[in-house]
Amino acid sequence: MKNYIKADPWNIIEEGFNPQLNKISESIFSLGNGRMGQRANFEEQYSGPALQGNYIGGVYYPDKTRVGWWKNGYPNKIDKVINATSWIGIDIEIDGEVLDLAHCEVEDFKRILNMREGYLERRFTARLKNGKCIRVQALRFCSIADDEIGAIRYCLWPLNFEGTLKITVYLNGNVYNQDSNYGEKFWEPGVTEVSDEGMYLFNRTKKTGFEVCTGSNFLIRKNEKQIRIDLEDICDQDYVGQRFFVEVKKNQPLSIDKISVQLSSLNHPGGQLMQCARQSLGQAMHKGFDQLKQAQAVAWAKKWEESDILIEGDASAQQAIRFNIFQLYQTYTGKDDRLNIGPKGFTGEKYAGATFWDTEAYCLPFYLATAEKQVSRNLLLYRYKQLDKAIENATLLGFGDGAALYPMVTMDGSECHNEWEITFEEIHRNGAIAFAIYNYVRYTDDRSYLADYGLEVLIAIARFWKQRVNWSGAKQQYVMLGVTGPNEYENNVDNNWYTSKMAVWCLRYAREAAKQVSRASPGKYKDLLQRVHFKEEEFEAWAAICSNMYLPYEPSMGIFLQQDGYLDKQQRLVTDLPAQDRPLNQNWSWDRILRSCFIKQADVLQGLYYFEEEFDLETLKRNFDFYEPRTVHESSLSPCIHSILASRLKDKTRAYEFYLRTARLDLDDYNNDTEDGLHITSMAGTWMSIVEGFAGMRVINDKLNFDPLLPEGWTSFSFRVQYRECILLFKIATAEITIENKGHKGIDLKIREKDRHIPGNKVVQLDQD
Amino acid sequence: MKNYIKADPWNIIEEGFNPQLNKISESIFSLGNGRMGQRANFEEQYSGPALQGNYIGGVYYPDKTRVGWWKNGYPNKIDKVINATSWIGIDIEIDGEVLDLAHCEVEDFKRILNMREGYLERRFTARLKNGKCIRVQALRFCSIADDEIGAIRYCLWPLNFEGTLKITVYLNGNVYNQDSNYGEKFWEPGVTEVSDEGMYLFNRTKKTGFEVCTGSNFLIRKNEKQIRIDLEDICDQDYVGQRFFVEVKKNQPLSIDKISVQLSSLNHPGGQLMQCARQSLGQAMHKGFDQLKQAQAVAWAKKWEESDILIEGDASAQQAIRFNIFQLYQTYTGKDDRLNIGPKGFTGEKYAGATFWDTEAYCLPFYLATAEKQVSRNLLLYRYKQLDKAIENATLLGFGDGAALYPMVTMDGSECHNEWEITFEEIHRNGAIAFAIYNYVRYTDDRSYLADYGLEVLIAIARFWKQRVNWSGAKQQYVMLGVTGPNEYENNVDNNWYTSKMAVWCLRYAREAAKQVSRASPGKYKDLLQRVHFKEEEFEAWAAICSNMYLPYEPSMGIFLQQDGYLDKQQRLVTDLPAQDRPLNQNWSWDRILRSCFIKQADVLQGLYYFEEEFDLETLKRNFDFYEPRTVHESSLSPCIHSILASRLKDKTRAYEFYLRTARLDLDDYNNDTEDGLHITSMAGTWMSIVEGFAGMRVINDKLNFDPLLPEGWTSFSFRVQYRECILLFKIATAEITIENKGHKGIDLKIREKDRHIPGNKVVQLDQD
Repeated sequence: MKNYIKADPWNIIEEGFNPQLNKISESIFSLGNGRMGQRANFEEQYSGPALQGNYIGGVYYPDKTRVGWWKNGYPNKIDKVINATSWIGIDIEIDGEVLDLAHCEVEDFKRILNMREGYLERRFTARLKNGKCIRVQALRFCSIADDEIGAIRYCLWPLNFEGTLKITVYLNGNVYNQDSNYGEKFWEPGVTEVSDEGMYLFNRTKKTGFEVCTGSNFLIRKNEKQIRIDLEDICDQDYVGQRFFVEVKKNQPLSIDKISVQLSSLNHPGGQLMQCARQSLGQAMHKGFDQLKQAQAVAWAKKWEESDILIEGDASAQQAIRFNIFQLYQTYTGKDDRLNIGPKGFTGEKYAGATFWDTEAYCLPFYLATAEKQVSRNLLLYRYKQLDKAIENATLLGFGDGAALYPMVTMDGSECHNEWEITFEEIHRNGAIAFAIYNYVRYTDDRSYLADYGLEVLIAIARFWKQRVNWSGAKQQYVMLGVTGPNEYENNVDNNWYTSKMAVWCLRYAREAAKQVSRASPGKYKDLLQRVHFKEEEFEAWAAICSNMYLPYEPSMGIFLQQDGYLDKQQRLVTDLPAQDRPLNQNWSWDRILRSCFIKQADVLQGLYYFEEEFDLETLKRNFDFYEPRTVHESSLSPCIHSILASRLKDKTRAYEFYLRTARLDLDDYNNDTEDGLHITSMAGTWMSIVEGFAGMRVINDKLNFDPLLPEGWTSFSFRVQYRECILLFKIATAEITIENKGHKGIDLKIREKDRHIPGNKVVQLDQD
Repeated sequence: MKNYIKADPWNIIEEGFNPQLNKISESIFSLGNGRMGQRANFEEQYSGPALQGNYIGGVYYPDKTRVGWWKNGYPNKIDKVINATSWIGIDIEIDGEVLDLAHCEVEDFKRILNMREGYLERRFTARLKNGKCIRVQALRFCSIADDEIGAIRYCLWPLNFEGTLKITVYLNGNVYNQDSNYGEKFWEPGVTEVSDEGMYLFNRTKKTGFEVCTGSNFLIRKNEKQIRIDLEDICDQDYVGQRFFVEVKKNQPLSIDKISVQLSSLNHPGGQLMQCARQSLGQAMHKGFDQLKQAQAVAWAKKWEESDILIEGDASAQQAIRFNIFQLYQTYTGKDDRLNIGPKGFTGEKYAGATFWDTEAYCLPFYLATAEKQVSRNLLLYRYKQLDKAIENATLLGFGDGAALYPMVTMDGSECHNEWEITFEEIHRNGAIAFAIYNYVRYTDDRSYLADYGLEVLIAIARFWKQRVNWSGAKQQYVMLGVTGPNEYENNVDNNWYTSKMAVWCLRYAREAAKQVSRASPGKYKDLLQRVHFKEEEFEAWAAICSNMYLPYEPSMGIFLQQDGYLDKQQRLVTDLPAQDRPLNQNWSWDRILRSCFIKQADVLQGLYYFEEEFDLETLKRNFDFYEPRTVHESSLSPCIHSILASRLKDKTRAYEFYLRTARLDLDDYNNDTEDGLHITSMAGTWMSIVEGFAGMRVINDKLNFDPLLPEGWTSFSFRVQYRECILLFKIATAEITIENKGHKGIDLKIREKDRHIPGNKVVQLDQD
């Protein structure tokens, strides 16, 4: 855990330059716009420890897999988002010495991530070995208004000299993925071009054939006046740049506005990328840095209007929630149903930039409440479009008759992961994908989605569960053998309560959804049944399973059992563990972790979170009190669920404790792994901890419910949700709850189980009781 | 399954050249002498499919491991026996065209492995593209009399021409392991030398620094007279050769006697290898091919005298058992306690040439009965010497106080395998190593071994089991969680009957062995206890576990349960499986295999084999009848145990069926994998199927027991066993059993539970009843 980020409501601030922290800061200060993302690498040369990273959503490479002992059924590739041509480079040379913060004295270093306006600023003074002193201010952003544009303003002031600077502005395609399994380069050799209208680097990925064209142009201001200067063109295979020499005077600023565009064949016609890039870049240059930056501020203002959470009385919590929201919208904006949310977003290579169940289980609620319906719908359509591949995947594993198993890790719908206990057995992911459909429909009331897309997915998933369970002669019940639950610290277990519960729920909901569609859209229903060869007899088999599924339960303790045999384990509590044993996954061998009672992340409790309406508070409390003390929270996805459940149990202290752990996970580098990238998907869990946790928001019987709780030390917290046609602003303060209905239509809510009507365009204030 | 090997009692014969079968034949016709092994690669160039292989026992390289998802506790290397400098090369060029069976017409091709005398012969006629016809006869062996020598006699006859042959005799160090994880070469660049006294190639392995010097010299006979000829020396970095041109006449033979030596720093002082090689090669050349071959025949005659099994009335079974015995002695002769028996011996790269539990569980009984005590003792000492590393290995996995976990796969005692469910959980191997000590002492009565070495190993293993079990509050018994039994088609299960049974046995036997040693050698006992910090209170904890260990059992069926939850599986029989699903491990995804009831190899039955004295025949039958029909025998180690148990149950048909399956596994390429190398360790199981199976040999209460059974179609079978001071020859025929006591001392046996005395130097004949 670290503590070097300064608290501030709207900014993330690092003061002082510490090369040891640089890779962590590169992650924390990452920029993105849902289409591209750029780690906080320096514009100028830097020879110290760094992870260069510029990634483009949807552009990936199928790396050859690396497996020690092959298991039948493994995919032979892992699709990875690729480090793409770097558009940020500006080399500075002063009197023959290159500016490189690893080789000079650095003073007054400051990095600021301005979340309100969406840009990164960096300032420092450097004293070179040759004694020359220079002040630099670099400002840059990835435009969320036009998501193919990145812009930089790089200003420098000679502090103790006058003379000639040698400056090279360039694009660099000599980039690699550090996680390439066999040190392979993922791009074909690039094509470069340079002219008065800019420099261009055209790339094509090997195998997948994605094309990317990066263009860049710049203008120079000396002493705040634009100047024209002779440029030397450099045009190598994977590198294109322009170099110039410029006389500078002491304390007089020289600035470079570098504007870049990065276009891919996902969004532009094949063969015309270079031409499109020229056009885009021309337009962007015409607008210029200031206008682009203004548009960026406006676009972010709108995002904040829709999604901000204001916390009064706790600067650290305030900064953290904004950081989480900011990074989520930097990663996914919901414009494109081919894109999704990788666990690290665009902030690193880990987890390959691919899609996990995190999206449905953690991210969807955030986007449901803070964005237009279309955004969540696109997340669902992403899976709908991959249904064929999910069916193919299930077929490979021996299932048939249209059963679908969505992959554990995917880019295009095919499985990319090669760990049998996960890939083949962590099948609860199928449930999360079904639940997301339920959650979306429940929240948005968009019932057409079921008829058009949702039911088809639900049937395929139900068919999978139907085939995945088997009848146990010994138990005279249906069982589910050989699974891995959300708690990955148990592998290949029998009858994981969460997975079996989820399977039963899926079978029930698929049938219920079918009924709804058959009533509401009989024509579509009939077509669908024909298309997927569905016979209504299948319902009977589903019902038989639902009515006689084995769900392990320990009556003497009143708890659901995580899996068969859980109580055979030596029962210890996390508080019994010596500090030097934590985290377990770095200190214990894998088998020791597996046979211990310690839990990585919510498992039974994840199920109680999903299906809370079925269980009373006493049941929740018993299970929480049993499982939480055995949970080491070594998944970033764990604290948020525990925070929500603790809120539900009115345990303010622990709810807040878990909140902080999820909220500041990356800012404070809790798990010592922020340098690999940020935990983007768990950031949505932070939002959930507040809105579903502290505020207790639920949709029950088509009605929004709240059950607010104000953490100790907070004066108030405020948030905004879109729900169906309404926009509601909530403020939970010490003495009162204020609800503003921003729409014209009134809405009926339940606050602490009491019905409340909030008329359109009105503010209603309720006393805290 | 293939069927191209001709039946013959003493020879393995292939007729006709089929390049598709070449890699299989390269395995089957492999040569070895316990110190080095050579696949049946051709002397002359061959550009068709081949796996070049020449391996030296004890010389290995720690290849960098290849793992997709790292688990804490994994070793970062895998030690591999290395493909070493090839000593067989003789290139033939006729009129500018290289002799290469991939590029000419081949007639009358015949390969013969002469097992009686221990050599490989190959004959063929080749018609080159240029029309020249040549007859070749190549004969070679790896000397078992002097295990650093290999010799070749390569004869050729021009059939339709006279002219000049260009011949190159060489050593080639440009060799790779095909299974190198990252395409790395494991040897440093070699040093070569050539003179009148031979050619030499000196090699050193990277990292491990083993040194090997290969030397070769040759003589030429034309028309059966030795000739001297001008030689051109070729001396490159990893290649050294001598080339000559020789005039040949139609039908007049030209022959080359090439003699090679291969010395390693394991057996010769560092820095003097080249000198030693010169001396060895000089001596070998002085003896010459014929004398060396004669010594080989004599040495093999002695081996056969000690270990041959004669089967009358079944040529195929006869050939098979000799092939198995021959390959075992080619792999391990027991001279050197630093060497062991890899599952593929020296016949391929698979399984890295490393040591598995196969040695103790399958090979030991063979060597106990067919060789001097010292041979088996060396196998045991191999593990004793690695005890420190086994303790270190257990420490890495969280055990303490001197507990030892022997590695799953090892060369020098350290773990080399990286599959968590095997490496960390297939811990029953520890039991096999303890059982081998028991078995050795029981068979040889060498009780000094316990005091000097065995007890120390047993205590360390018992300490492991003591820590590995835990008390189950739910069951109020000790349980063993998270293991993989011998049936690797189940991973990470709880309470595998075999493993738990074995653990209890180990705890009991360690205590019993301690008592024996304390009585017989109190001084050594005291020293040992002090050295390993053993307190006799530990016995109490062991006894507590033994008296209350949970061993899953299903009373309604009277069967031991393979593991918790086995009866929750869908119960199917192997006969229900469609043919196209077999073998499962090539057709089903891993999870499907795991959750099925199908068993890879004996598991509960392996335990009943080990501990048969504890169970009556009814119990054995019930378990056999339940488990065998669920067993797919996809491990080469499975049929032999089933054959032995079927013999015990007097089920002749199945005992014979399983015998054939183990005996001809490689000759008939049952599993379609003989090209990777032979299943050396399961070959000992073939021997067990006859001696422990058909003949029913056991040691019970210090007495040798037999319970013979003659398979249908066999007229008789005969075998020889060394037991303590006695040497006994058995012949089981239709009408009678003949027992010859070759020693001076009489011996008391039990035949079919009746006591029999066999006086020294006498033959006793008993009627079959």
